[in-house]
Amino acid sequence: MAILMAFNSPELEIIGMTTIFGNVSTPLATTNALYLCELGGLHIPVAEGSSEPLKGGVPRIADFVHGADGFGNINVVSTVKKSSQKSEQAACDFLIQKVADNPGEITIVALGPLTNVALAIQKDPSFGSNIDELIVLGGAFFASGNVTPAAEANIFGDPEAADLVFTAGINTQVIGINLTTQVILNEEDLLEIKNSNSKHGDYLYDMTRFYRSWHLSSDGLDGIFLHDPTCMAAVLNSSLFTYRTGVVRVETQGLCTGLTVLDMGLKEWVGDNPWVRKPAIKVGWTVNTTEVKKLVKDLLMRP
Amino acid sequence: MAILMAFNSPELEIIGMTTIFGNVSTPLATTNALYLCELGGLHIPVAEGSSEPLKGGVPRIADFVHGADGFGNINVVSTVKKSSQKSEQAACDFLIQKVADNPGEITIVALGPLTNVALAIQKDPSFGSNIDELIVLGGAFFASGNVTPAAEANIFGDPEAADLVFTAGINTQVIGINLTTQVILNEEDLLEIKNSNSKHGDYLYDMTRFYRSWHLSSDGLDGIFLHDPTCMAAVLNSSLFTYRTGVVRVETQGLCTGLTVLDMGLKEWVGDNPWVRKPAIKVGWTVNTTEVKKLVKDLLMRP
Repeated sequence: MAILMAFNSPELEIIGMTTIFGNVSTPLATTNALYLCELGGLHIPVAEGSSEPLKGGVPRIADFVHGADGFGNINVVSTVKKSSQKSEQAACDFLIQKVADNPGEITIVALGPLTNVALAIQKDPSFGSNIDELIVLGGAFFASGNVTPAAEANIFGDPEAADLVFTAGINTQVIGINLTTQVILNEEDLLEIKNSNSKHGDYLYDMTRFYRSWHLSSDGLDGIFLHDPTCMAAVLNSSLFTYRTGVVRVETQGLCTGLTVLDMGLKEWVGDNPWVRKPAIKVGWTVNTTEVKKLVKDLLMRP
Repeated sequence: MAILMAFNSPELEIIGMTTIFGNVSTPLATTNALYLCELGGLHIPVAEGSSEPLKGGVPRIADFVHGADGFGNINVVSTVKKSSQKSEQAACDFLIQKVADNPGEITIVALGPLTNVALAIQKDPSFGSNIDELIVLGGAFFASGNVTPAAEANIFGDPEAADLVFTAGINTQVIGINLTTQVILNEEDLLEIKNSNSKHGDYLYDMTRFYRSWHLSSDGLDGIFLHDPTCMAAVLNSSLFTYRTGVVRVETQGLCTGLTVLDMGLKEWVGDNPWVRKPAIKVGWTVNTTEVKKLVKDLLMRP
């Protein structure tokens, strides 16, 4: 949904997509990104990301959220044309090159675990300072997680990468599930999209059947959380959000692995702690849910 | 302040005090408890607690909050009479005996790190189930800590003990700094106490000079947080609070050491996590600040 929102926003110049594990494996995410490009008629590079988190090992795949295919098990991906090929560059190299070629001009919208961004930072010391803005969907700030009571899924997927990225001195804003769980589409909204003049109304409706069932069983919610679309709304119109600025660290061990802790700077600390003398980032604090919901629906219903 | 509130509450039958490190070392806390008994004219056992946290090592002493003497450096403790002696029992043995002798009747008000309670649980398997209620001052629920951005001081003082106590199946309520930092006395309130008919008005005013200065430098606050008095208000009148019920775990490692994470039960978890199948406790959620402040002042101003 977030990617189709971007496709339908003429004010954005989309210069490529990179992929990462999360709802599906990285190779399947690549196939799905290529499918979305076909669907949207957009010919942009799709660079495949890391198949595992920074520390290695098998990534956690939340296939119970969007189904085994990542699209709600609606069997569409087989329609990807043979002409659609992933880029020969790895995601981190693609990111490094695009940022180096366009210093100060690139916005990176990170909708999954931050492995690729972390790898680019590790590989190219100038990468971070040449990004215009990094906008991250992830974290649970002063709110419960969705993988464990402590951790949100994108950060839990690669906590080492998230801690590295958040403390790298990049101009960053983070939209956490403390905000995204406030933005909900219900069945009436989804039917409105289906019955609109949107090219993708049926597809969007069908795709959300699995996701909607999962919310009922997991959260007792008769509707769907708009995690990624809310983050894309922040890309398009940050005036619909308010922010707090502070240092964010990510727990990488113990039962709180994946937890995001923001130091809002309300207190002078006695002695040292892991937040002291680290660069600050912007964290989404409040969201205009009515306007974000309207923006999401308007974009998805464009013919 | 919390202890003087209890002394001035005829509805409480106080059967003893146990001591623990935190604002001062455990031996000095014992001296201070004996001093308070002299001050209040109360002859009750004072049982000395552990001098170190469960995992051993030198405890963190926050002498910058209440001064080296724990009373704001007002040089009063030398007035403890020689007749005042600590109990021969260690705190955990005192707790075990009192609870065993009065099963289902004892309320334990834990205003510091939970080491003594944890030791009692470890030593006597029947201890936890024979407590009527355990009321704990500690934790930061969906709020910033006061030792680090993650951790509140009492829990940080012995995170292993806190995790053990919170998951021991004891009838427990926890009052965290998410509530206690909402209850503030300013200079006008403190002068009202000083100039009241209270026996201890001057003492309370003098004692809070150091604490008040510390709030100015640490939090930019022209007033003092009523941490312990708010917890004692919950002992006296829990109707001034609302609560959430859920499993609380405490991080014992990494940068979030001492962080308290509550699972409010809003979500069905996929797979296992450290909160699943643990007993729930009550966590203070909202506080009637006007009424708590009134209760604290009324009790402290009793002649």
